[in-house]
Amino acid sequence: MWGELEQLGRAGTGGYRRYAWTPEDARLREWFAGQSAARGLDLVQDRAGNQWAWWGDPDADGPGVAVGSHLDSVPDGGAFDGPLGVVSALAAVDALRESGVRPTKPLAVVHFGDEEGARFGIACAGSRLLTGALDADRARGLTDGDGVRMAEAMAAAGLDVSHVGRDDETLRRIDSFVELHVEQGRAMVDMDAPVAVGSAIRPHGRWRYELPGEANHAGTTLLADRRDPMLAMAAVVLAARAAAVRHDTVATCGKLRVEPNGVNAIPSRVTGWLDARGPVPEGVLATVADVTAAVEEHGGRVEQESWTGVTRFDADLAAELAGLLGGVPVLDTGAGHDAGILSAAGVRTAMLFVRNPTGVSHSPLEHAEPDDCEAGVRALSTVLASLVG
Amino acid sequence: MWGELEQLGRAGTGGYRRYAWTPEDARLREWFAGQSAARGLDLVQDRAGNQWAWWGDPDADGPGVAVGSHLDSVPDGGAFDGPLGVVSALAAVDALRESGVRPTKPLAVVHFGDEEGARFGIACAGSRLLTGALDADRARGLTDGDGVRMAEAMAAAGLDVSHVGRDDETLRRIDSFVELHVEQGRAMVDMDAPVAVGSAIRPHGRWRYELPGEANHAGTTLLADRRDPMLAMAAVVLAARAAAVRHDTVATCGKLRVEPNGVNAIPSRVTGWLDARGPVPEGVLATVADVTAAVEEHGGRVEQESWTGVTRFDADLAAELAGLLGGVPVLDTGAGHDAGILSAAGVRTAMLFVRNPTGVSHSPLEHAEPDDCEAGVRALSTVLASLVG
Repeated sequence: MWGELEQLGRAGTGGYRRYAWTPEDARLREWFAGQSAARGLDLVQDRAGNQWAWWGDPDADGPGVAVGSHLDSVPDGGAFDGPLGVVSALAAVDALRESGVRPTKPLAVVHFGDEEGARFGIACAGSRLLTGALDADRARGLTDGDGVRMAEAMAAAGLDVSHVGRDDETLRRIDSFVELHVEQGRAMVDMDAPVAVGSAIRPHGRWRYELPGEANHAGTTLLADRRDPMLAMAAVVLAARAAAVRHDTVATCGKLRVEPNGVNAIPSRVTGWLDARGPVPEGVLATVADVTAAVEEHGGRVEQESWTGVTRFDADLAAELAGLLGGVPVLDTGAGHDAGILSAAGVRTAMLFVRNPTGVSHSPLEHAEPDDCEAGVRALSTVLASLVG
Repeated sequence: MWGELEQLGRAGTGGYRRYAWTPEDARLREWFAGQSAARGLDLVQDRAGNQWAWWGDPDADGPGVAVGSHLDSVPDGGAFDGPLGVVSALAAVDALRESGVRPTKPLAVVHFGDEEGARFGIACAGSRLLTGALDADRARGLTDGDGVRMAEAMAAAGLDVSHVGRDDETLRRIDSFVELHVEQGRAMVDMDAPVAVGSAIRPHGRWRYELPGEANHAGTTLLADRRDPMLAMAAVVLAARAAAVRHDTVATCGKLRVEPNGVNAIPSRVTGWLDARGPVPEGVLATVADVTAAVEEHGGRVEQESWTGVTRFDADLAAELAGLLGGVPVLDTGAGHDAGILSAAGVRTAMLFVRNPTGVSHSPLEHAEPDDCEAGVRALSTVLASLVG
């Protein structure tokens, strides 16, 4: 499975560019459908375009257990973030069958679409649409960097756009959801743990700021006559870092759009994005307030693109899984996941993390050791055997 | 002429995107060829792709006077920067003919290609190639933002790429060159002068800086573990402005490339461009030295893309033209022009400026009043009548 996936959507940089509703995305969906067919699973696509491969019939036999993750990536992302969870889920199904387990309830492997939000700016768009956390009309109207609307992109990929929205039929089929994911920090290295259980997702969100300027000639416009949004942006980027230090959060300015982006033209506008997260919501919101003040001081404005407070996974389930796995650590994470969206929508949800030896993620250098990945599959198999066995 | 040009290469922003060796560029060349044919002028393309429309035969009757400018634009540029000089040159030829002038020497209207360098990063590439100031091999190897080499773009547009380079045959045909251009500042507003004569181009250049970082996850990477080139860039942008104030120059950071430019990824690299100019070379170079120190402090490096010291136009010719025009002002400019390249190559060169009521240029808001444009055509006709009459 890894060898096949490895080639899909890989850029010359060695990183992955797997964005929602692109030809690469279509190939990843085909790959998932092929894996489902090879195992005799029943493939269903929900109203948001997420793929569910069922072992058993949740409509006849009552709600089942879903396990999976996403296959899309950030720009130049790594191989593990997302795909490790999907591949491990399929491998765990194989392991259950090999060991002769006969599920007492249906089991689905799920492939969530558009988790990173790399193209349209909203993370976990697939699971948010499914649960209704993202309004269908808002989603349809989102545009990518080329001005293509999500509705157009979905339609071009064959999705029934008018049907997109909260999917109660699908939600009724899910009793519990377990997502395995590569860790995106170094906590497990220090704990000497190849596998851990998730307790919560820290509060996090995305904000977009626009800084207006006045386009003019770089050679003939006096400094005093300039209204240069690049200077404002520089001040905002430094203010974001200072605010993160002050409020014990992390703040990242990873994306910019400069218009017109010419060497000899003072820009007419700079648009930037802020990603802010932290242990408690108050700290994150204080960070954003400080950044907003810096933006407004330069005549700009800030718009919230997404915000998620603390998401606590089912504490009883987390304790049960940690026990099943011989007392592995239970820890929270600063990364958002589809598991957080489902948990917030009332689904009993758990996460398993697989150790990341360097902590690097959202980078071609992201890595996990094969032994740890296999430990992850064994852990997931143990968990599933307990939940459906 | 203005009505036809107005539609070519205009973007939805109202600004122009006329870049070298694109389909828009081809349409501008066709337009110029049509204007040449309509006047019975002999169209010759030089080895750099610049177009010359001759009235008279410089090979038979000795070198002549060339008059013209460029038609390309910066991203979202204005309508006047370049085209006003080409249109005024054609209109001046019409005016000379209407007034019955019979030239004593050949006269050419010239359309220089790729003056802004918006696509391949080198300003005045057409005139620099013509004079040899830009090496042909270096030019052929330049790449645009999509990785297309200038050689490929030229070949796709039908130019004989192997033949590109200094064109002595063309240079031998030119006795003098006069370029009319919209002013790109507000000096002439204060002087109450619709037309002025140029004395010099201030020293100016472009530098590219690269700031390395380490791609990582925006949510899970501790501030202390980050190597974030966006913070370095912010410091460099502010350092450039401070250096410009300190050294009495102008410094502009108008263009950036952020990799991978994802909301939830710490960038792996930021590339920025610096445009610096000033009254004296020492000030500009001191500004660049300060910016270089800031870049190197963050582990980055700076590369010079172009540099031109003070370019003084022929002082006798400038004085003669100012006299012919009734004592109009003579002033220098912070903007680079093809006239500067030809002057540096030993061609007797002059410039005329037409008043810009707001000083705004390199912007869709760039403007010149029709009365001032007509005064420009009259001044150019007077100058040409004196030079070839």
